[in-house]
Amino acid sequence: MYVGIDLGGTNIAAALVDSDGRIGERTSIRADSSGGAKTIIDGLIEVSEYLLRDTYSTPPAIGIGVPGTVNDEAGEVVFTPNLPLKGVNITRELQERFGCPVRLGNDANCAALGEMIAGGARGAQDIVFITLGTGVGGGLIMGGRLITGLSGGGCEIGHQVILAGGRKCGCGRFGCWESYASATGLVKTAAEYRKTHPYSLLWDNSKGASDRISGKAVFEAYRAGDHAAILAVGQYVEHLSIGLVNLINMLEPELICIGGGVSYAWDCLEEPVQSFIDAERFYRFSPDAPHTRIVRAELGNDAGIIGAALLGCESI
Amino acid sequence: MYVGIDLGGTNIAAALVDSDGRIGERTSIRADSSGGAKTIIDGLIEVSEYLLRDTYSTPPAIGIGVPGTVNDEAGEVVFTPNLPLKGVNITRELQERFGCPVRLGNDANCAALGEMIAGGARGAQDIVFITLGTGVGGGLIMGGRLITGLSGGGCEIGHQVILAGGRKCGCGRFGCWESYASATGLVKTAAEYRKTHPYSLLWDNSKGASDRISGKAVFEAYRAGDHAAILAVGQYVEHLSIGLVNLINMLEPELICIGGGVSYAWDCLEEPVQSFIDAERFYRFSPDAPHTRIVRAELGNDAGIIGAALLGCESI
Repeated sequence: MYVGIDLGGTNIAAALVDSDGRIGERTSIRADSSGGAKTIIDGLIEVSEYLLRDTYSTPPAIGIGVPGTVNDEAGEVVFTPNLPLKGVNITRELQERFGCPVRLGNDANCAALGEMIAGGARGAQDIVFITLGTGVGGGLIMGGRLITGLSGGGCEIGHQVILAGGRKCGCGRFGCWESYASATGLVKTAAEYRKTHPYSLLWDNSKGASDRISGKAVFEAYRAGDHAAILAVGQYVEHLSIGLVNLINMLEPELICIGGGVSYAWDCLEEPVQSFIDAERFYRFSPDAPHTRIVRAELGNDAGIIGAALLGCESI
Repeated sequence: MYVGIDLGGTNIAAALVDSDGRIGERTSIRADSSGGAKTIIDGLIEVSEYLLRDTYSTPPAIGIGVPGTVNDEAGEVVFTPNLPLKGVNITRELQERFGCPVRLGNDANCAALGEMIAGGARGAQDIVFITLGTGVGGGLIMGGRLITGLSGGGCEIGHQVILAGGRKCGCGRFGCWESYASATGLVKTAAEYRKTHPYSLLWDNSKGASDRISGKAVFEAYRAGDHAAILAVGQYVEHLSIGLVNLINMLEPELICIGGGVSYAWDCLEEPVQSFIDAERFYRFSPDAPHTRIVRAELGNDAGIIGAALLGCESI
């Protein structure tokens, strides 16, 4: 069994994973960065030791998904905003302790790999994986191989400008897809509609404070037929779909696999998003041509663990 | 020597090409579609026969670049707007006549391949190739392999929306990169500035009719220091760069290679485009990380012939 570790800003989640992407035993501890890189690395060793405590054979590989840019060959974290690991080799000690290769991947790339191996993107080789959460992240797989990009950070598909001069994005640009298509973007859009619709559920449920709106609450109001929520979700669908059509036109992948918090409201989004795509994609003029499928991710947080585990699997 | 054929809407250009991408003898005839697919195929045979007239050995392969979508395996043109070849097998007769494999590629993809083999993108493996001409076309190479997309049409990078609700694009969407970053887009932008600057070279040179502005004239006025042209080129640089940063953020290729008519004015664009990219790309926070280079294409129309020829070259 492979060991897959999802190193997050707050937790280290890990599991044993077989080569088909099935998860066996799992564990999770708090990511302790009180002692800098050392206590983080100790945590990586701790979860691995726990999972491997009853195993007499060397695991084929350990893989770690990191929220940032990595240099897999050097075993180094290049950059990560929320952990004190910049420029640190985090694989050496694990390699020595467990006597197996230790691989590194960007966390969104690992999740993409996980969904390809055992989730919503099973069977496809050319995949765009997207997480719609606090931000918009993603992973790109072409011909079954991860496209990690020059810096190893993976593809920042959320940081494509779709509305030049639009909302200010955390990356410093104006009008990035992330500012509209993330859960945060949805809440911002809903707050705008709430302001002009004081007799709406959006208004009532937020009890006068627009920062009390949650993505979930917007979809609940939408399902209840609230006019302001219908407008907000409609606007959200448009912006989400513009970025999806951009990706389809540029890459024409077999499928786009959508995960992250917003994907739990896929019942509200699937139909209008698909209609928008059908109406706007470049190759709509060739109705016989195969077209990119949009599917929901299936594995949630497990995708990252599975993908990390199988970074070192030769057959993938 | 390989045979490379660039099948255009008006001409069929062809040449002998060696495996390093060097062009030998070349020829060109008018693309005659008066007799439908048959006369086009006859033209393909004619140029090949001419180039191979003194050769006693079978060429290793013939390759054809087609302005549209192709199914290389089936030898079929799937869709092409300007030639009567939809659904037609255009390789069978050539294969029988010359006894060698005949390969098909999208013309922009062939040009990308040509620039990688022998042009501005030499030595790189992860490349975005862009033509800034009447439209904005492109080709994507990852790990040395063309990304042809699900339908075989290649990547329509010009049809990414960068300004939702912006200029109407020929593809039916509003605000596509092509509407701003193509030569046509530049002329449109210049026409807008011309209207509000009647005491400008842009105005004078177009003699009162905005449709007499050409891309070349805009850059000439810019070089002469004309205020209206400086504004128009500045606006063009911004829109061009937004799409380039989108591609860099999403794909982080080793390099972006820029061809097409507008690239002949690269002396006016290189510096401001590079400054914009340096200021806006996502990974600017990691100054040590390698970054995508922007280079000019070198081969002009030859790129497509070279790339087509070497579609059938095993070592590429």
